[in-house]
Amino acid sequence: MSLEKGMLIVLSGPSGVGKGTVRKAMLQDSNIKFEYSVSMTTRNIRPGEKDGVDYFFSSKESFEAEIANGGMLEYAKYVDNYYGTPLRRVQETLANGTDVFLEIEVNGAMQVREKMPDGVFIFLTPPDLASLRSRITGRGSEDQTTIDKRMEKARQEIKMMSNYDYAVVNDEVSLAVKRIEQIIKSEHLRVPRVIGSYYKMIGDK
Amino acid sequence: MSLEKGMLIVLSGPSGVGKGTVRKAMLQDSNIKFEYSVSMTTRNIRPGEKDGVDYFFSSKESFEAEIANGGMLEYAKYVDNYYGTPLRRVQETLANGTDVFLEIEVNGAMQVREKMPDGVFIFLTPPDLASLRSRITGRGSEDQTTIDKRMEKARQEIKMMSNYDYAVVNDEVSLAVKRIEQIIKSEHLRVPRVIGSYYKMIGDK
Repeated sequence: MSLEKGMLIVLSGPSGVGKGTVRKAMLQDSNIKFEYSVSMTTRNIRPGEKDGVDYFFSSKESFEAEIANGGMLEYAKYVDNYYGTPLRRVQETLANGTDVFLEIEVNGAMQVREKMPDGVFIFLTPPDLASLRSRITGRGSEDQTTIDKRMEKARQEIKMMSNYDYAVVNDEVSLAVKRIEQIIKSEHLRVPRVIGSYYKMIGDK
Repeated sequence: MSLEKGMLIVLSGPSGVGKGTVRKAMLQDSNIKFEYSVSMTTRNIRPGEKDGVDYFFSSKESFEAEIANGGMLEYAKYVDNYYGTPLRRVQETLANGTDVFLEIEVNGAMQVREKMPDGVFIFLTPPDLASLRSRITGRGSEDQTTIDKRMEKARQEIKMMSNYDYAVVNDEVSLAVKRIEQIIKSEHLRVPRVIGSYYKMIGDK
């Protein structure tokens, strides 16, 4: 029996930063106990994929019905297909005292933040701080338009970051995983998350 | 050169919980870089103590002058002697990008919270959650007055806890130290602490 409710952990970040790789490494890691929330999609199943493992595969009609019923924690439409996180499973797992781990796009993460503000929102950032400037200016051979574009992209990414609780640099997958684990462990020690169980312990509330 | 300001870490908790022991173990640990803030006192130096190591030993007059000048981050008077934390050293160390670690009584911690709200406030709690109830009811042989007193004490301690960011159980010193280290590492990844350096990196602000 767990006195404490599970914690929602949301990993997101700009596209191409390596969210999926970090998530897969997290799942292989046995140190931390959590349940990965499998997304639901209307796209066709591909060879080698398993329903309920890679995705929950769904028809367009039933996905839209879920949306209409408020059954999606977040969702998006890409190239005519829906992708999203079914809400009920997340709620049930949290109620059982197990942490839930989501790896989703930034727009989805902001939808989750609206609905579950006490989640832990982690922004995965490109390789490292110091490389940001060189990433922008390139090898010195870039024209001003390219530099401006990259600058604007970096600015957008940092702006996105401001909506998150933590920024984790993805310089090395194993290091990023370690940092996320530390965040999870330390978030479990946050007073607002544990004080209720102390009060229950002495019979107050 | 550090882009990030140092972080103030405050360890406190009810008397008798083992703050001093955990602090000493923290100081011996080489994993984490921080500076321990040596307290100032007006009590006499004892055999084996070193000025500037165990305490900064001061006269009553100059301690009171510091208070009057706003030079103390926190202070208290016990049995006619002052104890407190000199502010300037803390500020300088933080400005240099080094974390500062304080181990102080709960009243002092609340004074620090007022002045430096972006510090990390860690409450060390008695051995373990499950023992709280047995600590209160004893071996069943306690009279109601004793139980009521312990209950009230536990209630007060939990109330104190609510003013802190984290609750760390002191079941085993090495485990408590590990938890504190995790908190420190993960607090350094908090977006409000790092986003400024990202903006600086791209030349904004």
